[in-house]
Amino acid sequence: MTARQRLFDIIEKSNGTNKTSKIFDIIIMSLIVLNIISIVLESHDWIYVQYEKEFILFEKISVLIFTFEYISRIITAKYKYPSKSKLAAPFAFIFSFYGIIDLLAILPSYLFLLHLDLRFIRIFRLFRLFRLFKFGRYNNALGILINVVKARREELLLTLFMTFILLLFSACLIFIVEHEAQPAIFSSITKSIWWAVATLTTVGYGDMYPITPIGNVIASFVAIMGIGLVALPTGIIGTGFIEEVSKNNKEERCTCPKCGNVF
Amino acid sequence: MTARQRLFDIIEKSNGTNKTSKIFDIIIMSLIVLNIISIVLESHDWIYVQYEKEFILFEKISVLIFTFEYISRIITAKYKYPSKSKLAAPFAFIFSFYGIIDLLAILPSYLFLLHLDLRFIRIFRLFRLFRLFKFGRYNNALGILINVVKARREELLLTLFMTFILLLFSACLIFIVEHEAQPAIFSSITKSIWWAVATLTTVGYGDMYPITPIGNVIASFVAIMGIGLVALPTGIIGTGFIEEVSKNNKEERCTCPKCGNVF
Amino acid sequence: MTARQRLFDIIEKSNGTNKTSKIFDIIIMSLIVLNIISIVLESHDWIYVQYEKEFILFEKISVLIFTFEYISRIITAKYKYPSKSKLAAPFAFIFSFYGIIDLLAILPSYLFLLHLDLRFIRIFRLFRLFRLFKFGRYNNALGILINVVKARREELLLTLFMTFILLLFSACLIFIVEHEAQPAIFSSITKSIWWAVATLTTVGYGDMYPITPIGNVIASFVAIMGIGLVALPTGIIGTGFIEEVSKNNKEERCTCPKCGNVF
Amino acid sequence: MTARQRLFDIIEKSNGTNKTSKIFDIIIMSLIVLNIISIVLESHDWIYVQYEKEFILFEKISVLIFTFEYISRIITAKYKYPSKSKLAAPFAFIFSFYGIIDLLAILPSYLFLLHLDLRFIRIFRLFRLFRLFKFGRYNNALGILINVVKARREELLLTLFMTFILLLFSACLIFIVEHEAQPAIFSSITKSIWWAVATLTTVGYGDMYPITPIGNVIASFVAIMGIGLVALPTGIIGTGFIEEVSKNNKEERCTCPKCGNVF
Repeated sequence: MTARQRLFDIIEKSNGTNKTSKIFDIIIMSLIVLNIISIVLESHDWIYVQYEKEFILFEKISVLIFTFEYISRIITAKYKYPSKSKLAAPFAFIFSFYGIIDLLAILPSYLFLLHLDLRFIRIFRLFRLFRLFKFGRYNNALGILINVVKARREELLLTLFMTFILLLFSACLIFIVEHEAQPAIFSSITKSIWWAVATLTTVGYGDMYPITPIGNVIASFVAIMGIGLVALPTGIIGTGFIEEVSKNNKEERCTCPKCGNVF
Repeated sequence: MTARQRLFDIIEKSNGTNKTSKIFDIIIMSLIVLNIISIVLESHDWIYVQYEKEFILFEKISVLIFTFEYISRIITAKYKYPSKSKLAAPFAFIFSFYGIIDLLAILPSYLFLLHLDLRFIRIFRLFRLFRLFKFGRYNNALGILINVVKARREELLLTLFMTFILLLFSACLIFIVEHEAQPAIFSSITKSIWWAVATLTTVGYGDMYPITPIGNVIASFVAIMGIGLVALPTGIIGTGFIEEVSKNNKEERCTCPKCGNVF
Repeated sequence: MTARQRLFDIIEKSNGTNKTSKIFDIIIMSLIVLNIISIVLESHDWIYVQYEKEFILFEKISVLIFTFEYISRIITAKYKYPSKSKLAAPFAFIFSFYGIIDLLAILPSYLFLLHLDLRFIRIFRLFRLFRLFKFGRYNNALGILINVVKARREELLLTLFMTFILLLFSACLIFIVEHEAQPAIFSSITKSIWWAVATLTTVGYGDMYPITPIGNVIASFVAIMGIGLVALPTGIIGTGFIEEVSKNNKEERCTCPKCGNVF
Repeated sequence: MTARQRLFDIIEKSNGTNKTSKIFDIIIMSLIVLNIISIVLESHDWIYVQYEKEFILFEKISVLIFTFEYISRIITAKYKYPSKSKLAAPFAFIFSFYGIIDLLAILPSYLFLLHLDLRFIRIFRLFRLFRLFKFGRYNNALGILINVVKARREELLLTLFMTFILLLFSACLIFIVEHEAQPAIFSSITKSIWWAVATLTTVGYGDMYPITPIGNVIASFVAIMGIGLVALPTGIIGTGFIEEVSKNNKEERCTCPKCGNVF
């Protein structure tokens, strides 16, 4: 077994027999968790000011480890994609879902060293958030979600299209009746779409609402008839997700009506 | 093949073989999208002031093309309704769902040229929004929705009736207990119905809410017991829609691995 | 056929053959609708002041007709309850659901004539709202709802009990953490229950919300875990209602696995 | 039958034959209800000030009875856990779910007598709230809920994990785009998570909402796509609960009208 083969066994998700691989998994997962905590803490101004040096040090260590992981995955790609040629395998990894995630998880930090405009620096650092998705390798929740979106692609697109039409239509109607009465609030259809989203998802922040009687009547009809439609894309993903989870847990059996074979 | 027959083939939804028909479809659909974008942009005062001429020019071109399309559909109606007499066919189109939509999509612009009261002009122009529904010809989402409403007519009417009774009853109850305490907010039952809609759809803008203890108790009971009922019409449309979509997509079949019987 | 028997045929819901009965039904239903409209209009101060005389006149006519209907139903009760004795039948009607509704629909107006305290008069008149339920005789929606509540009695009580416990528990928790920070808003557990209702039904008016970090954390956990539970009683009634409606529409068939009989 | 055995029969949930046991059950349940009412009333400052002595007296009586109940349950534990040794049985009860609840229901009151810091006293007393859960012994709702959480453990954890990731991701995104525009409102990612919870559960208090156009767009996408996912853990518990309830109530059977076969 070559050193590269051994490296591949370590960085791949442990199947329980390889101890070094398990330790590597735990280190990476802990590092992701610590990075998330660090991102959240950093966003508090008073914490960032006090511990700036520690945050930058931790960031440097994290990037180093993640970069090592990324390079390791590139050079061991031929074991992951055995059907690909020696040259194609690294690119197969680089352009795979997790290959892109891994790059996006370290790239901002490198660009940040070159970037000098202070205003953007902290916002840019937030893109380290992509490290969150590295979790997907160790937890099948994200994979299940992607499967669901793929399987229900057609229904999702159709209902999203309907949702979009309904939002646009509601927004225009309410704009027509409320613009005169509240020109500062319902200032444009773009703003009215925001009202339509808040209403049809039933979030209802209360920053925008109709005050004219006819506006109230239209909003009532839109709300009662439309909430079900807007709930559809969310419902499709939701129920699809739960079906996918229980499919893995139970094996539904089927009886052939002709020969009585249960399978 | 007459010129009129050829025109009919072009304006009808392309089945993939007729290239001119496909190009015509794409032009009309792009024009609809551009019109929607234009309606949304126009609603911003500062954009409208700056590009008023361009908006009017684009509107004139759009109306011309849509008018050409509308007239074409009238004169080729006899091919669309072969069972109707030569004289009845155009009227069959004019009074069909899409015939009315097509007319409503151009009529406001013609009336707008004659209409001189400046205050209504911009609002009136918003009725061009009906162009949105012209999309229905190229996407079956709207058709599915209409089917669902037709199929569940009875359930819908019954639950809408219940919803209406519940809204009225809740509004009266809350008016009785809150009018004294907040005469400016719960000023009439009409206004209280608006509160009932916002509460029972769980939108909850926060512009109206009970403040007396007994008002809170009544609102709590109304909310807990009533939300399910108000969600019914939306739920019926929602689930009917998704059923209709999946009915078209899959015919779930099962093959017995022993005897090969498909059932 | 006696005059009383004929009267009974008229006031009973028409089965389509008796014209006088049909006209009577339409008059009563129209009167109910007009009464509802009158109640809503009256609640607007400026309308009431201007048309007070007309409202009172209309009310007097309505009460007369509803009183005639009520008395007719009492004296024809022996035809409605043929199994009861001549003396018991009227009481069987008076204490039936619609007997009580019919009385509550006219009683307030009679009491109002005796009652002199002006402050309560208008509020008291709102109890005429019970006329709304007289609709139930002509529309089976209310009957279906009552059936659903009866059939799901046990589930409803259990989930209402859970909902109550959850509301109380959430209210106490948020009171513990927020009372110090917002003594005027979260002033007592009673007020906190109102917050819990608004949050767990997802209405979220915005009149009360936690502002302390620990209050936010508790409210988040309560919201994510609890919304499903509070939605249960509403969901049970909702789905039960829709099942009951479709049961009347479709007859589900069943195949016996032993003899193959489809029934 | 020893005195201890008799005591055990009394404190155990009555099966209807033992009158003393039934009376004991009713006393304990009434005491729990009165305690809850007392906790709610106490939280009103003006009530507490006026009736402080009565509240303290009632609390002392309650603690005495609950302490007697707790000790009785410990000394009769060997009848409840007959398989355990004489010494292990009491500990089996003490560390059981209801053993802990019973202790938590009286402990705060004893600690409160020793504790002198006045600021914490009243808050601490609220932990008597745990008496609420003593209800669980007499009502199977809580037991059903615990069963549901156990049975759906896997799905719940997976969806809670997804919910957590989604909340974190939405919060970071909105923080990136809104922090500049509303530094006081979207002051940190921690605060933004609170926004994400209020939005994705559709509560929408209205204390935080995006105002920048790009913030509105992101919030709209998050709301439409994410509401379904956040509703999943609540939906799983909710539907699981209702399934569990109906499983206990009905065993749906079907009788063939031709051959009488019940299946």
